[in-house]
Amino acid sequence: MTPTITAFERSPDGGKGLARDTRVRWALEEVGQPYEVRLVSFPAMKEPAHLALHPFGQIPTYEEGNLALFETGAIVFHIAQRHAGLLPKEADARARAITWMFAALSTVEPPILDLSTAKTIEAGEPWARDRLPLVVDRIRVRLGQLSARLGEADWLEGAFSAGDLLMVSVLLRLRMSGILDEYPNLAAYVARGEARPAYRRAFAAQLAINAPAG
Amino acid sequence: MTPTITAFERSPDGGKGLARDTRVRWALEEVGQPYEVRLVSFPAMKEPAHLALHPFGQIPTYEEGNLALFETGAIVFHIAQRHAGLLPKEADARARAITWMFAALSTVEPPILDLSTAKTIEAGEPWARDRLPLVVDRIRVRLGQLSARLGEADWLEGAFSAGDLLMVSVLLRLRMSGILDEYPNLAAYVARGEARPAYRRAFAAQLAINAPAG
Repeated sequence: MTPTITAFERSPDGGKGLARDTRVRWALEEVGQPYEVRLVSFPAMKEPAHLALHPFGQIPTYEEGNLALFETGAIVFHIAQRHAGLLPKEADARARAITWMFAALSTVEPPILDLSTAKTIEAGEPWARDRLPLVVDRIRVRLGQLSARLGEADWLEGAFSAGDLLMVSVLLRLRMSGILDEYPNLAAYVARGEARPAYRRAFAAQLAINAPAG
Repeated sequence: MTPTITAFERSPDGGKGLARDTRVRWALEEVGQPYEVRLVSFPAMKEPAHLALHPFGQIPTYEEGNLALFETGAIVFHIAQRHAGLLPKEADARARAITWMFAALSTVEPPILDLSTAKTIEAGEPWARDRLPLVVDRIRVRLGQLSARLGEADWLEGAFSAGDLLMVSVLLRLRMSGILDEYPNLAAYVARGEARPAYRRAFAAQLAINAPAG
């Protein structure tokens, strides 16, 4: 059965691939699962029909027969469970790869999202300029630790996994800031992710919706 | 094989149960798995031996034979996978319960942690007082949505699951603030979690380490 995901009718990033549907598209492309997309406007995201699918009024969602899921990490995990290619088969290696899924979303992404908030929602506040260095320093702490762990490896835990998919997606949010370039092995890690054919297909698919008509 | 977890030698919360080892203890108590605890000092958390276990220099970690895990969500998930009692057996129900695990840690907890940061690390900053209402409002948005979804149900998705365990643990961080009491169904939900015998055993175990000697 072909799953249906939701995506922004018009992504706030204008097609840079940072909307979270790109992560789900990437996972589906990695495992070779075709999918359909339903676009949702910002007003519709807060209406009862969408809130029934996603209690926090966001995208993406995932529908497959009678199953409806929300929350990007859970959707990527579901895809990785149902198909080969995104998680190791051996139990311990699988648990370690899943650890990186949670680490990407719970430990590495929150300070990065704080930077987005500081630069957008709080950009006009009187404290915006003075507070920014604190926010950036918190990101640097995490990136320093992640860089030390990754070392010269290609991926976080053996072969490419759903943990890398989410970690690369999280780190991609930093490219515009220049912070990622302070950690050459992380910049190279992100570049390896972006070079994967599945990522390129996912990126192109979201760009086709979000790019300004030429 | 008896697993070993790590916990703070002295928790910053003085035994209120907010340190993340309580979540892992709770999961182990729910499934009836005995465990051992190794206490780690703040300086030791940043030393190579601990960083080899936990790249971000935090607690808890989980060691079981040759398997070493970090990241609370991943550890709770591992326990739930290996034992009955924390995730439904039926595939779709299981995927929905896992969704709430990610939702607790990725969507509900970050704004709550921002409040902790605003009240501690940033408490002495010149913007502290003026910024606080923004931080609290972001929490209210999430709690309002969560409250609407929970409604009059006891748990988020049928029977108690690892999703509830993590969501209750996340919401417990708010009790001192009084914000939780603005949502009576969420306050009752948290109280149901705390009333579970497994939670009470987990809480007592961390308290025995952290309570000031009488």
